[in-house]
Order: sequence, then C-alpha cells, then structure tokens
Amino acid sequence: MTGIFASQISLASYREQFPSLANKAYFNYGGQGPMPQVALEAIQQSYVQIQHLGPFSSQSYEWVVEEADRTRGAIASALGTTPQTITLTENVSAGCNIALWGIDWRSGDHLLLSDCEHHSVIASVQELQRRFGIEVSTCPLQATLNDGDPVAILAEHLRPNTRLIVLSHILWNTGQRLPLAEMTAICHSYSSHQPIRVLVDAAQSVGMLPLNLDELQADFYAFTGHKWWCGPEGLGGLYVRPEALEGLHPTFAGWRGITVDRTGHPTGWKPNGLRYEMATSAYPLYAGLRAAITVHDGWGTAQDRYQRLQTLTQRLWQQLLELPGIHCLRSTPPETGLVSFQLPGKSHTQLVKYLEASGFMIRVILDPDCVRACIHYLTLEAEIDQLVAAIQEFLPRH
Amino acid sequence: MTGIFASQISLASYREQFPSLANKAYFNYGGQGPMPQVALEAIQQSYVQIQHLGPFSSQSYEWVVEEADRTRGAIASALGTTPQTITLTENVSAGCNIALWGIDWRSGDHLLLSDCEHHSVIASVQELQRRFGIEVSTCPLQATLNDGDPVAILAEHLRPNTRLIVLSHILWNTGQRLPLAEMTAICHSYSSHQPIRVLVDAAQSVGMLPLNLDELQADFYAFTGHKWWCGPEGLGGLYVRPEALEGLHPTFAGWRGITVDRTGHPTGWKPNGLRYEMATSAYPLYAGLRAAITVHDGWGTAQDRYQRLQTLTQRLWQQLLELPGIHCLRSTPPETGLVSFQLPGKSHTQLVKYLEASGFMIRVILDPDCVRACIHYLTLEAEIDQLVAAIQEFLPRH
Repeated sequence: MTGIFASQISLASYREQFPSLANKAYFNYGGQGPMPQVALEAIQQSYVQIQHLGPFSSQSYEWVVEEADRTRGAIASALGTTPQTITLTENVSAGCNIALWGIDWRSGDHLLLSDCEHHSVIASVQELQRRFGIEVSTCPLQATLNDGDPVAILAEHLRPNTRLIVLSHILWNTGQRLPLAEMTAICHSYSSHQPIRVLVDAAQSVGMLPLNLDELQADFYAFTGHKWWCGPEGLGGLYVRPEALEGLHPTFAGWRGITVDRTGHPTGWKPNGLRYEMATSAYPLYAGLRAAITVHDGWGTAQDRYQRLQTLTQRLWQQLLELPGIHCLRSTPPETGLVSFQLPGKSHTQLVKYLEASGFMIRVILDPDCVRACIHYLTLEAEIDQLVAAIQEFLPRH
Repeated sequence: MTGIFASQISLASYREQFPSLANKAYFNYGGQGPMPQVALEAIQQSYVQIQHLGPFSSQSYEWVVEEADRTRGAIASALGTTPQTITLTENVSAGCNIALWGIDWRSGDHLLLSDCEHHSVIASVQELQRRFGIEVSTCPLQATLNDGDPVAILAEHLRPNTRLIVLSHILWNTGQRLPLAEMTAICHSYSSHQPIRVLVDAAQSVGMLPLNLDELQADFYAFTGHKWWCGPEGLGGLYVRPEALEGLHPTFAGWRGITVDRTGHPTGWKPNGLRYEMATSAYPLYAGLRAAITVHDGWGTAQDRYQRLQTLTQRLWQQLLELPGIHCLRSTPPETGLVSFQLPGKSHTQLVKYLEASGFMIRVILDPDCVRACIHYLTLEAEIDQLVAAIQEFLPRH
C-alpha cells in the first residue's frame, strides 16, 4: 500500500465521524461546517448534565461558568492568544456589532470599510452612519485579487478623522487572503487624532488559517465556530486586543458582563472579554465546539491542515482553469479554501441547483457574480474530480 | 380512587417527562425551567436534520426559515398575538437591549425605570445614560407590594420629556404582578412631546400567566423560553407592537433582518419582527421550545395552569406564614408563582445551601434581601410540604 493510498483510506475512515459528509459532496464549509458526531454527543451530554444538576442551582451555575471558561480557553489556545481576550458570542455578526457599537462615535468620525464586506456588516455600518452622522467610505480591495497592493490602497484611504477600519481576513466573495498584520500596522502607525482601530470579520479565517492573534495585533477579530471549525451554529467569539478593551464599551449589556455590589446593583464591567457577554446562552453548545476543535487537532496541526487544504484547493483551481467555459476569479493559485469562478453567459443559480440535485453542495455569490466552492482539509481528492466532472456535464446542456 | 388522588397520580406520571424533576424538589422555575424529554429529543432531531440536508444548502436554509416561522407562530399563538410582532432572540436581555437601543435617544430625554428591575436591564440603562446624556429616574413600585397603587405612582413620575418606561410584568424579586394594561394606558394617554413607550421585562410572566399581548398593548415585551416555558436556554423573543415598529430601529443588525438588492447589498429592513433578528443562531433550539409549549398545552389551558399554580403558591405562602421565624414579603395571598420570604436574623445564603444539600432547589434575592421559591403548575403538593418541613428543620439549628 503506498503512502498516499493509505492516507486516502485513513481520511475516508476519519470522515465517518462527520455524519453529514456521508450523503453528499460538500463544498459549503464557508457557509457552515459539518459537525462531527462527538460534538453532537457532547451537546446532548451537556443538556443532560444541566438538567441533572439544576437546571438552575448553585452547582449548575458553577458548571456553566466552568464550561464557558474552558471554551474561552480552548478558543484562545487555538488562536494564539489568552482567554482574557475572548468573548463568547452567538455569531460573527454579534462580534462585529459589539465592536461597531462599542466605540463612542462622534459626528464627523470616519469609518473605512473594504468593498468586500458581508451585507450583515454593511447594514450595521449604515445604521451607525444614520444614528451618529459618521462619515463612511469604501476602500477598493476587490480589485487587488490578482495584482495591486492592499496595504498601499488602505494607506491611501486613511484620514485624520478615521477611527475604525472594517475588513475581512479572508474576503468571503473572492477568497483573497489579506496581509492583515501589515494592514493593521499601517493603521496603528497612522498619525491620527485618535487611535485607528481595526475590526476584522474572521468568518472565513478561523478554523482555516493557522492563527496567532497576539502577533496579528488586530484590535477586534470576530469569528464563529460553525464554519471552518465545524462546531454548532449559534456559537462564536470576539477577540479584543487588551489595548483596545478600555475604549470599547459594552452596548447590549447584561448580567454576564457586569460586576455588582452586595445588593446586586451594577458597579462596572468585568475586567476582560466577559464584559461583552450578555446573558443566558445555549450553554450546551460550548462542549460541542470544544469537541469539534479537538477532532481537528487529532488530525494534524493547524499548519498541516492548512497545507492540505491549499494543495486540494489548487487541484480544484487547476482543473477549473483547464475547463473551457469557466473563468476563475484568481489568475494564480488560491491561498485559501475558497475558489470563486464564473460561467460567462450561464446562470450561476442554475448551476448550483443542478449540482445540489446531483449531491454537490456549493453556493452562489452575488457580488462579484460568481459561484463559490469551499475546500477543507476534509475534502477528498475524488470529490474535487467529481465536482469538476459534474460542472463539465452541466456546461453544454445549459 | 378520589378525584384529587387520581390527579396526583396523573401529575406524578406527567412529571416523568421532565428528567430533572426526578432527583430533586425544584423551586427555581423563575431561574430556569426543567426541560421535557421531548424538547431534548426535538433539538437532537433538528441537528440530525440540518446535517442531513446540508448543513449549508438551499434545502437546509429553507428548512431553517420554516422552523423560525413555525416558532414565531407557536409563540404568537401562545401569547395572543400575530407572528409578525415576534422577534426570536437569545434571551430576555437581548430583547430588552433591542428596545432600549432602538430608540433614537437625544440628550435630555427621560427614561423611567421601576425600582425592581433586573441588574441586566439597569446596566444597559446606565450605559444609555452615559452615551446619550439621557435623564434616568426610578419609580418606587417595590413599596406597593401590599398596598399602594402602582398606576398612580407611575402617573406621578411621568414627565413631558419621558420617552420610555421600563418595568416588569411580574417583579422578579417580590413576585408582585403589576396592572400592566392600566399602566400602559396611562403612558399612552400622557400628553408628552413624543409617544411614551413601555418596555416590559417579561422574564417571569411568559409561561406563567395567561397572556393576550394584543390586548395588553405594551410596546415592547421581552421574554425567554427557558424559564416558565421550560424550553432550552438560549432562545427567547421580543414582541413589538405594530404601532411601535417603525420608530424602533435595529441596532445589532445582520443578514436575517435586512432586505437586499440583486447584488446582495442592503436596501432596508424586513417589514416585521424579523428586522431585529441578527444572524446565525442555534436553530435546533426552535423545535425544542415548540415541543415544550406543546407539552404544557397537553396538560391544560394557560388559565388552568395558572389557576393550579396560584392554588399551590397559596398553599406554600399559608404554611410559611404560620412558621415562626419566617416573614413573607406578601401580607396577602400571592397572585404569582414567586414566593419571597425572609428569615430575620439568619443567613439566607446558608438556608439556600442547606436546602440544596437536602435536594431542594431555591434561590437568594439580594434586593430586597430574601429567599425566593417558585411554584409552577408542575409542583407537587408534597414538595411544598417537604420544603416547609426542611425550612422548619433549618430554623432552630442556625
């Protein structure tokens, strides 16, 4: 048995831990990751435990506090930072909103948004603009997918009244990985009235890239557990750089984030990321996310997984490149697991429907108008080859 | 077999659906309700379904949208209103924060808070005060537990610049049920610069009281599924009165609440309560809450359940009243399932620890300094008698 063949067999058997991979070829990891069976069981077990101890009692409360601590710890450890910087949130949007609304905006402040941000974030920024009379402008990063320097373009768009930059570590539409450390450094060294903060939509980077948030130095890094980490939907987090904590006020406040006096009245905020946590959450999900992270770590290091993911992505990109009638947005091999492509003159929605009916899960992106296939380290070489074959079948028929 | 005896047997067998009731005498329904087994199974089944259909695919998306619709429908039907008025939220605090932050506050606006609100709400109000320079004052309702007229006291505290009243339908500390319809009518008929809105913390009323929100006419009614409804933690809702919708802006915005154009860019808000829903949530919980509501309805109508709960509460209150060394906060029979009492000269924390160690789950309240026992329609007469006996045992020893 050759090494490659052995690893294929072992991956096939490893994938049996993910029930949803059994009945389809899956290319929507960037939408939601398949949950491993142990995560589902951990969630179930947590429900049983909470009901056994309470559900509401001193013991169940202690257990939940420990679960949250363990989860912030597991997240921090995976992301190269300390648990004190981590806030548990419901989703990426919650994390972005905590950062967006936590700044004490003054009329005339400037917020700079990349032109590839998710509509969730854009909607919140538009509302901030309406409420506080801030200036909002857009930084054209989409055009740098194949050439151009995102760092230089960002630098050109900073203003003396800029207070916040909003960008994604990996652009969700084109799959481009931004040079985040360099972009953050530019913002932090800019001579402005007030520090320029950097909010990162990390929906596509957490669970895909090897990360060290302490080194990256972004101020706010909002992520979710349910995409590349394959955790349960409804649990994510926000990293807040210690230097940025005091200036970021909690907005949607609640009992989890505050300190109280002996009569239970609020006296201030917890000294760490807990200050942005609000109230009762779906606590059983915590064990589910930790279980999912543990599964990935059992396969290989973050670096190993990213390397395999890149190899696989390039296999897909290469094959699509050779297919007449397909235009890949990237002209050089993609660095991330997102492969976006177009079928000039054809309907992307129709392609996605055709593929879904054939058991291939993939999605449409509206801007730029394209189709996005996501590749994880879990992806099989055979799935990629079959996807390309299915697209090839679609082309002449439609 | 007498009728009463038969119903006792039938309740004992009915309670077997709630695993957490098996190993304790439970008096913390106002903290978190015990989840019926069918709710846990419905959650599990939803996870399986989502993984089977996707987790991310057109089919799973449609399924999740339907699940959310069904859940808003079930909630609306139980609360006497239409699904369009319902927003699904993570918890009561989320609902309160949506209402608190959705008003376009101007410096000098007045917000009136009852003196019995939860510290979650107080913390958010303090932050609003800091950010927008609003006036905040407190309305002394706690003293009306046994006599006095909350409606008259509220009326005295309204000002021409008042924009929002924040109060609870059932005061979480003393258990008092406020005459909400009358209090809301006073606010709505007050001659003010702008309409006075009424935000209700409904943490203790939903699942306990028979409710008709369309008749109550409160503007914002924030509740949770995991207390008296015995649903999973991490799922609640907010009712927004149709007349109050346009004036209440989404704050923490996201893809679930917005409309988009053909390029996916935000164009506005959804026309109903969906506008305040943000992004990905723990969707499997939806089926769990619906299952819990169905279980209660299988026992009896909301009116039947409330009637039994009141009878049981009065049994506890009567027995405590007769116990030397106990002071019940209420001097007349309580109308709700919350019984708050004091042990003058003793430590309430010590009592709660003693009771927990003996299998009785009950809690301390810090303001006023007291102990709170919650009675649901699920409570057994025998549990009440045993709780009183356990308190009686504690008294001379401590």
